Amino acid sequence: MAERLVVIGGDAAGMSAATQVRRRHRHREIVVLEQGRFTSYSACGIPYLIGGEVSPLEALVARSPQEFRDRHLIDVRVGHRATAVDLDQRTVEVRDEGRDRTIELGFDQLMVATGARPVRPDLPGIDSDWVRGVQTLEDADGLLARADGSRCRDVVVVGAGYIGLEMAEAFVRRGARVTLVEGGDQVMRTLDPDMADIVATAVRSHGIELLLGQKVKGFEPGRVLTAAGPLPADLVVLGLGVAPNAELAGDAGVPLGAGGAVEVDRRQATGVDGVWSAGDCADTYHQVSRRRVYVALGTVANKGGRVAGINIGGGYASFPGVVGTAITKVCATEVARTGLTEAEAEVAGFSFVASRIETTTRAGYMPDTPTMTLKLLAERQTGRVLGAQIVGGPGSAKRIDTVATALTAGMDVDNLVDLDLAYAPPFASVWDPVQVAARDALRLLDVAGG
Amino acid sequence: MAERLVVIGGDAAGMSAATQVRRRHRHREIVVLEQGRFTSYSACGIPYLIGGEVSPLEALVARSPQEFRDRHLIDVRVGHRATAVDLDQRTVEVRDEGRDRTIELGFDQLMVATGARPVRPDLPGIDSDWVRGVQTLEDADGLLARADGSRCRDVVVVGAGYIGLEMAEAFVRRGARVTLVEGGDQVMRTLDPDMADIVATAVRSHGIELLLGQKVKGFEPGRVLTAAGPLPADLVVLGLGVAPNAELAGDAGVPLGAGGAVEVDRRQATGVDGVWSAGDCADTYHQVSRRRVYVALGTVANKGGRVAGINIGGGYASFPGVVGTAITKVCATEVARTGLTEAEAEVAGFSFVASRIETTTRAGYMPDTPTMTLKLLAERQTGRVLGAQIVGGPGSAKRIDTVATALTAGMDVDNLVDLDLAYAPPFASVWDPVQVAARDALRLLDVAGG
Repeated sequence: MAERLVVIGGDAAGMSAATQVRRRHRHREIVVLEQGRFTSYSACGIPYLIGGEVSPLEALVARSPQEFRDRHLIDVRVGHRATAVDLDQRTVEVRDEGRDRTIELGFDQLMVATGARPVRPDLPGIDSDWVRGVQTLEDADGLLARADGSRCRDVVVVGAGYIGLEMAEAFVRRGARVTLVEGGDQVMRTLDPDMADIVATAVRSHGIELLLGQKVKGFEPGRVLTAAGPLPADLVVLGLGVAPNAELAGDAGVPLGAGGAVEVDRRQATGVDGVWSAGDCADTYHQVSRRRVYVALGTVANKGGRVAGINIGGGYASFPGVVGTAITKVCATEVARTGLTEAEAEVAGFSFVASRIETTTRAGYMPDTPTMTLKLLAERQTGRVLGAQIVGGPGSAKRIDTVATALTAGMDVDNLVDLDLAYAPPFASVWDPVQVAARDALRLLDVAGG
Repeated sequence: MAERLVVIGGDAAGMSAATQVRRRHRHREIVVLEQGRFTSYSACGIPYLIGGEVSPLEALVARSPQEFRDRHLIDVRVGHRATAVDLDQRTVEVRDEGRDRTIELGFDQLMVATGARPVRPDLPGIDSDWVRGVQTLEDADGLLARADGSRCRDVVVVGAGYIGLEMAEAFVRRGARVTLVEGGDQVMRTLDPDMADIVATAVRSHGIELLLGQKVKGFEPGRVLTAAGPLPADLVVLGLGVAPNAELAGDAGVPLGAGGAVEVDRRQATGVDGVWSAGDCADTYHQVSRRRVYVALGTVANKGGRVAGINIGGGYASFPGVVGTAITKVCATEVARTGLTEAEAEVAGFSFVASRIETTTRAGYMPDTPTMTLKLLAERQTGRVLGAQIVGGPGSAKRIDTVATALTAGMDVDNLVDLDLAYAPPFASVWDPVQVAARDALRLLDVAGG
């Protein structure tokens, strides 16, 4: 009998792995268990679907279950939820929702790609159906139905991280009155407070009511309860981050790692022979802090899934990990980060200087040139680049990639100054913003050294 | 007596060097000889001045002679042309145009920053005052005077390189009928022919008449003569590239290098003790081909000038050279390159694969997402990245910086696939275009290897 691979979860990591295995083995049996209705969709696109920029919902699906079946001969079973894994027997217990039955499925190799779920704190009324998380296309479907029409005038978004900001923009686009409530004292805890302040000012300038340091106490019909009083709400969107769906693997005895996610090595192998994992349910390695971290991002899921698939298929691939890159926008304000923030650099034990410069995305004399702020951290003793954060207008944030690439290469700020970056007046100043910050960091290092 | 530094040329390289020296030595005498009226201006901004996006002309001046005198105590002498250098006597012969006299100026250290001049082939009528090059602000001033009003309906731009394309866009913006005449059989000889073809199609789609393989024979009042017949022209702009102003240094006995430019080492020192050079009159080192090259770009001038100044001031700095990055746009089409083209890689002796992918700058499902073509070259035996070229819509070209940084770090295509590049749907696909091309190059390497 042909060897059987069972993949639990039919999104980025799972389907990347499955297609890589198929590429190498025409006849291997590949079964994908997906509890929802969709495969390989862009969860990151949901805010743009809700905001009305993208439509219909199916536009977010890269490949449907039927396409995987027809083109890749992958046995994708939607509406199938894995409920238990027996590592000794090498079986998965599966709930087939469509036929209302439970089956057992044997495997030779197992790919755990169970993703993540929105954090839902235990608050009164949080299970109301007008309090919604954003993770799957099914969530998006429900949100769209609720968001439509005149019934949805007041929207409260809880949590001012990436998804919170993006959903706030989405409802601004729909013409709703949007209140963004954050329990912490800054937006985007993944930024330093000084950079987060710039984002907060921008958020407010885009017509979003931003409440910082406001803990949500509960939900009552038509309103969100906070310590400062109730907020009117026809709809609540939870943007409190996600937690890995690692219980299934953990309960079976697969070792868990950073953030309670499945621990994997460079080849995406778990601690159990023949069991692999990637995506939002797995941990990863941070190349700058040199620690294992939990990062739930589509980029990491795709890379990890590809590496897992190559290895499951008998090839050799490894994933060197992340450097902490992320990007988002809220209306006309772009935000990006890579490497370590000041707080993260301190935890990781680095002594560092932090430069922050304000400049323009294009030559300063070009018309309507957006401004941007770029912060750059460098290790005090060596000048090694440790991280960067950008907040600015259109065309600012994607240059975080230059720093991300430099971090991967272990460059120092001198190297950044020397980089042969592209310059013409419509694209940059003659010293690119990254280099302006690097020169300022050099100055700080000289002061620090002297 | 205080040591005297004489700087010949008051633009990017010269003034960068002068200010670096001043930073280190409060009392050193620094004399800058500038034959024109302006210092530290953006020649790269001239097309946007002519196109009417930038105004007035002075907007292109980063710092005026008076500012250098007042704030940096640098003795900037405009209207002063160095006519000869005596390396034995350590003197410069200077023509003071304002006072109509010739003086001699002694130096302890000499910085040669004489820049470049537009190539003007020896053709009948080329010295007419309606046939103009574009290099200095004085050129721009003359062009502006000519370009104005109804007298300037038909404009012929000769040469379809960077400056030619940018000037073509500028006159399209002014509402002129623009013909771009190129003697070679492609636009932008700095791109491979397949990528240049995409640019050519875009140029034509932007309403520019493009004539390839048409040698200009001469100029008669109101028309440009070509083998295919005369072209009506109220104004001709020469975009045939530039040649280094290295004669002054060469005649004095300073050794010349690549492209007839002043040969410099990593510290921007010439072959003569105490004589330094940088900018458009000097050569530089190409980190990928490992050859000395002539590259006349503002970025290189600023970096080289800074390094020269630090060294002249008694510090230590070195410039590792370029990787061949350049960027431009013509109307809504962006173009960038870095590293080596196919032709350059062949000359440099590399065996390579070339991947070319078509993709979108943002997630494909986002509205009005521009398309882009990215070509990536990798060494066949090692997978080392050798170069990239991009042609695409708004937001495409600046990601050449990711490849430029990777080239500097000596990365291979596997490293590109692994990079932690920023992703969100408004900014990129989940695999950034650079990584889509890298994955395709991996596939080609596998085929080539197998």
